[in-house]
Amino acid sequence: VPARSTGARAGPQWLSLAGGRETRQRWPGGEWRRLVADDVLTGYRQSIDNIDAALVCMLAERFKITQAVGRHKAQHGLPAADEGREERQIARLRMLAEQADLDPEFSEKFLRFIIDEVIRHHERLRE
Amino acid sequence: VPARSTGARAGPQWLSLAGGRETRQRWPGGEWRRLVADDVLTGYRQSIDNIDAALVCMLAERFKITQAVGRHKAQHGLPAADEGREERQIARLRMLAEQADLDPEFSEKFLRFIIDEVIRHHERLRE
Repeated sequence: VPARSTGARAGPQWLSLAGGRETRQRWPGGEWRRLVADDVLTGYRQSIDNIDAALVCMLAERFKITQAVGRHKAQHGLPAADEGREERQIARLRMLAEQADLDPEFSEKFLRFIIDEVIRHHERLRE
Repeated sequence: VPARSTGARAGPQWLSLAGGRETRQRWPGGEWRRLVADDVLTGYRQSIDNIDAALVCMLAERFKITQAVGRHKAQHGLPAADEGREERQIARLRMLAEQADLDPEFSEKFLRFIIDEVIRHHERLRE
């Protein structure tokens, strides 16, 4: 029993329910399926969006620091790479990941993903 | 003029200076090179380590939420994928990245990296 039907469109038929918080789409065969969900899903998505905004801001801050490290190393003739450092970072992050119930393999993959970007930054600066 | 020489070891020769805040390593040819740097670099690295710990904790929290989303969608018969949602997330993160002086391309690559892991989680749950 739709509260407000928006009827047929150029694409598939759809209708809006519960003051726009829920949308149903008509599938081939005439069945109506729920597309956008309820308040619970909306709440989860708001939390994900908040966390993603925080992640982006922290990554921006992290790259500011690695750029400063690059400048500092160049100014003082320090070697660009320090293999022992990377190993220590990975070991530490794996430990922190376990404590936070995050897959340690993923934390290592994540750090390598970030470090690859740092290397790309440094290469771009050298060009 | 070393303050304290630790002399030869099984590996390459090295020496400690300035109360352990600086280490030099002997390279082939006899040249001494600075390995671990000064207080400035140590400070930068502490900031990077703090940010990485925060990133790992936030990622752990994000995966907790996406797992709850997966359970919720399964319970209520909602479709697993929502393409419009991903496009909106990417557009929003690119905007936030620009405001934070982070490469928008990287923010998009980062979100796809995370979403790929979410998909792997959901596939593992289904098996």
